[in-house]
Amino acid sequence: MTYHTPKAVIIIFGATGDLANRKLYPSLYRLYRNGKLSENFAVIGVARRPLTNEDFRNNIKKSIEEFNDPHINPDDFASHFHYNPFDVQDLTHYQKLNAFINELDEKHETDGNRLFYLAMAPNFFGTIAANLKSQGVTNNTGWTRLIIEKPFGHNFETAQQLNNQIRHAFDEDQIYRIDHYLGKDMIQNIEVVRFANALFEPLWNNHYISNIQVTSSETLGVEERGRYYDESGALRDMVQNHMLQMVSLLAMEPPARLNPDDIRYEKIKVLRSLKEINENDVDQYFVRGQYDRGEINGKELDAYRESNGVDPDSNTETYVAAKFMIDNFRWAGVPFYVRTGKRMAKKSTEIVIQFKDLPINLYKEKGDTIDPNLLVIQAHPDEKITLHLNAKKGDYDTTSKPITMYYDKKHAEDSYTPEAYEVLLNDCLHGDSTNFVHWDEVALSWKYIDIISNAWEGNKAAFPNYTSGTCGPKAGDELLGANGHHWWKL
Amino acid sequence: MTYHTPKAVIIIFGATGDLANRKLYPSLYRLYRNGKLSENFAVIGVARRPLTNEDFRNNIKKSIEEFNDPHINPDDFASHFHYNPFDVQDLTHYQKLNAFINELDEKHETDGNRLFYLAMAPNFFGTIAANLKSQGVTNNTGWTRLIIEKPFGHNFETAQQLNNQIRHAFDEDQIYRIDHYLGKDMIQNIEVVRFANALFEPLWNNHYISNIQVTSSETLGVEERGRYYDESGALRDMVQNHMLQMVSLLAMEPPARLNPDDIRYEKIKVLRSLKEINENDVDQYFVRGQYDRGEINGKELDAYRESNGVDPDSNTETYVAAKFMIDNFRWAGVPFYVRTGKRMAKKSTEIVIQFKDLPINLYKEKGDTIDPNLLVIQAHPDEKITLHLNAKKGDYDTTSKPITMYYDKKHAEDSYTPEAYEVLLNDCLHGDSTNFVHWDEVALSWKYIDIISNAWEGNKAAFPNYTSGTCGPKAGDELLGANGHHWWKL
Repeated sequence: MTYHTPKAVIIIFGATGDLANRKLYPSLYRLYRNGKLSENFAVIGVARRPLTNEDFRNNIKKSIEEFNDPHINPDDFASHFHYNPFDVQDLTHYQKLNAFINELDEKHETDGNRLFYLAMAPNFFGTIAANLKSQGVTNNTGWTRLIIEKPFGHNFETAQQLNNQIRHAFDEDQIYRIDHYLGKDMIQNIEVVRFANALFEPLWNNHYISNIQVTSSETLGVEERGRYYDESGALRDMVQNHMLQMVSLLAMEPPARLNPDDIRYEKIKVLRSLKEINENDVDQYFVRGQYDRGEINGKELDAYRESNGVDPDSNTETYVAAKFMIDNFRWAGVPFYVRTGKRMAKKSTEIVIQFKDLPINLYKEKGDTIDPNLLVIQAHPDEKITLHLNAKKGDYDTTSKPITMYYDKKHAEDSYTPEAYEVLLNDCLHGDSTNFVHWDEVALSWKYIDIISNAWEGNKAAFPNYTSGTCGPKAGDELLGANGHHWWKL
Repeated sequence: MTYHTPKAVIIIFGATGDLANRKLYPSLYRLYRNGKLSENFAVIGVARRPLTNEDFRNNIKKSIEEFNDPHINPDDFASHFHYNPFDVQDLTHYQKLNAFINELDEKHETDGNRLFYLAMAPNFFGTIAANLKSQGVTNNTGWTRLIIEKPFGHNFETAQQLNNQIRHAFDEDQIYRIDHYLGKDMIQNIEVVRFANALFEPLWNNHYISNIQVTSSETLGVEERGRYYDESGALRDMVQNHMLQMVSLLAMEPPARLNPDDIRYEKIKVLRSLKEINENDVDQYFVRGQYDRGEINGKELDAYRESNGVDPDSNTETYVAAKFMIDNFRWAGVPFYVRTGKRMAKKSTEIVIQFKDLPINLYKEKGDTIDPNLLVIQAHPDEKITLHLNAKKGDYDTTSKPITMYYDKKHAEDSYTPEAYEVLLNDCLHGDSTNFVHWDEVALSWKYIDIISNAWEGNKAAFPNYTSGTCGPKAGDELLGANGHHWWKL
């Protein structure tokens, strides 16, 4: 794909928020520094707080401090940023915003392109969308795009409401739903590893793969997010989106072309093929956990129920392990295990593809057990692809021992790996929606997840059930044990 | 396999020779040092030269100097060695030898086991075998084994004569024909890589493999071996034995068990499946070369025909490239390319398995060509297994770039890799003939090679045809080019 440098006015709602400061401004800065943004862009920061342009630009400069390139004057970059104090209920504010966009469009020659970024809590998305449309702010001459952050609803019903509100002002192909996992370099590597290597694709099915394990674990607890988290939980916060997205990328058929429609079509097909779970059978497929007190690195930690903003009797899960079965020709019989949790032993984002055992162990007579072959794609802590194979033991006899071969991005020549938000902002500015979530994906995954959350909400769990700093509740291991599998060590 | 420390009297014919000093004594020493030989062994050095025991033991101590373990007194080790001046034509010498073996057997409690090692030119093998038998030297109470070195004949006819002479005194299962390539750790790794990894065996056939390349190249010329080499040439010296052995290991079906009979049976089947070449078609499958003057590392080098002992008009090849086709269900259509030569650009022993291209390059639109996947097993210069794969480029777009992952024995924990001769001596002392060459293999490979050498002897080549320090003659590249393949860089 040839990239022309994009031109646009970017309107960020929630411009004083954490996401904007920690991710969006640094990402825009790096795109700018790397020549992915020309001078033909402007950012309008929209938020309730009354800030001056100068305050705002100082915030911007602070947020990019650690990435500063000595060849670029931070003031030059910050001069693209403008602050617009805003009341989302006040229609006149939309009109003034529209005029301001037009003014900047002319000044920065952005061809009438507008990117709206909703970097805020979703409560006002409907109001904003309706008002943007009614006041003609989306009625521009260039392209119009909307980036929207998770959570996208709390279940299928609320997701659909939210979607209807947004769709009132934006078409599906104007909407870019962020799942930042899809911007991670190693998650994007799933596609390349699968479709650019003759070695793997012939084995990528139920003839040769025993099971696939996807882990996203944290050592942190809920910290300051207790109030939000207690309403959400790991199932909604992680499994419905990130975990199912990774499963889709791992399980999808090769697309006809590597374009957004073809790829998303294949991912949607995976979600459609998920084996439906009866509400009564949920325990056979899903395990929930909530962390108790514990210790990590010698530090005493409180239980989830003791956290700020959390119900002392909370039934919210901070850990989920799940077994997804994909009922199609390629995957029937192969469990896709996922687990995610807070306060676990290690922070890790990792995919393990476990190949089936050999039909026969020829080395048995020599006393060697043979470890299964594993392909491990790790996004965190290291960006690494590892193969676990077997080779001859350095010995007189021809016996087998496990070896590992790996590719570590750290040591790769092209070692500049853009950050997830940087990649996704760049994609959106170019109109590439491949790594954004289609409504059909949102809808299908919520419908699937709703069955689980309904079952769980219907009965109280014996929480807390795992100690902080461990690998989650025992039932999480038993989920795999029932199939003769076990979690590979992180 | 549980190893009991073997007991034996080892009788080495050619005990003052180069092989004995450079390989056999150091190997016996390392076996001894590593606890693979108990005190229950004795070595009788047999040769024409009149040496005293003391002279002989001094030779032994000199040959092991560089491997010396400070915990072992070299005299203790050397005390197991005894010299026996010998005339292979004199029957009384055999009787005396027999008595001496019996004496040492009693002294060292070796259970009547005898290992004869013919570490000398083959001219007298027939005489020695006949006399050993007629004088009752092979009529011992324990086991009797014979190790014999290459060259095993000069063509099928002479190999058969030699075999008949030996078989007069020894059964096939007492004969251990050395091909030292079979003792190399990385060559033994072919078996383990194939049969201990579920990842490779399903792909190990003509559906997924494009071609296999086996290289054994040297930078040295014939040096002091001109007289011998000029009668032999690369085809007989390397291809008939080492190269075809490696092809057999790469191409064989999985054996029923990892025992000598089952493995050798499968290797023999490969040789039986080699596509027969008509004498008129030899040029389509075989390329010969002879080195001219040239330069390696700034050093001017003479041509082969200028070497000591070489006919100034010699028709002997110092380079062979070959394409073997294996006409069976697994391999039909997959060329096994081999090349071997002296005075080449690099010293290397390496196997490249090239997998077929992907059915479609999804990254073509993004301008990426995709390199084929390669599995490289390298015995020299490094002991290494490398996989050439493709992964995501560190970039904003999802594009593909080649990466390598490797396993280097150097960095393996069990970094003691016994030397080929050490492994093979140990195998023979334990009666394990897996890594020795069966007569059927010798016979089949000579019959195949005889067609080539007959064709070549029938017409004079346009030698010299490659410059010292290069990758061989142009025709060696064209052999692969005809199939759209090319040699991978060493």
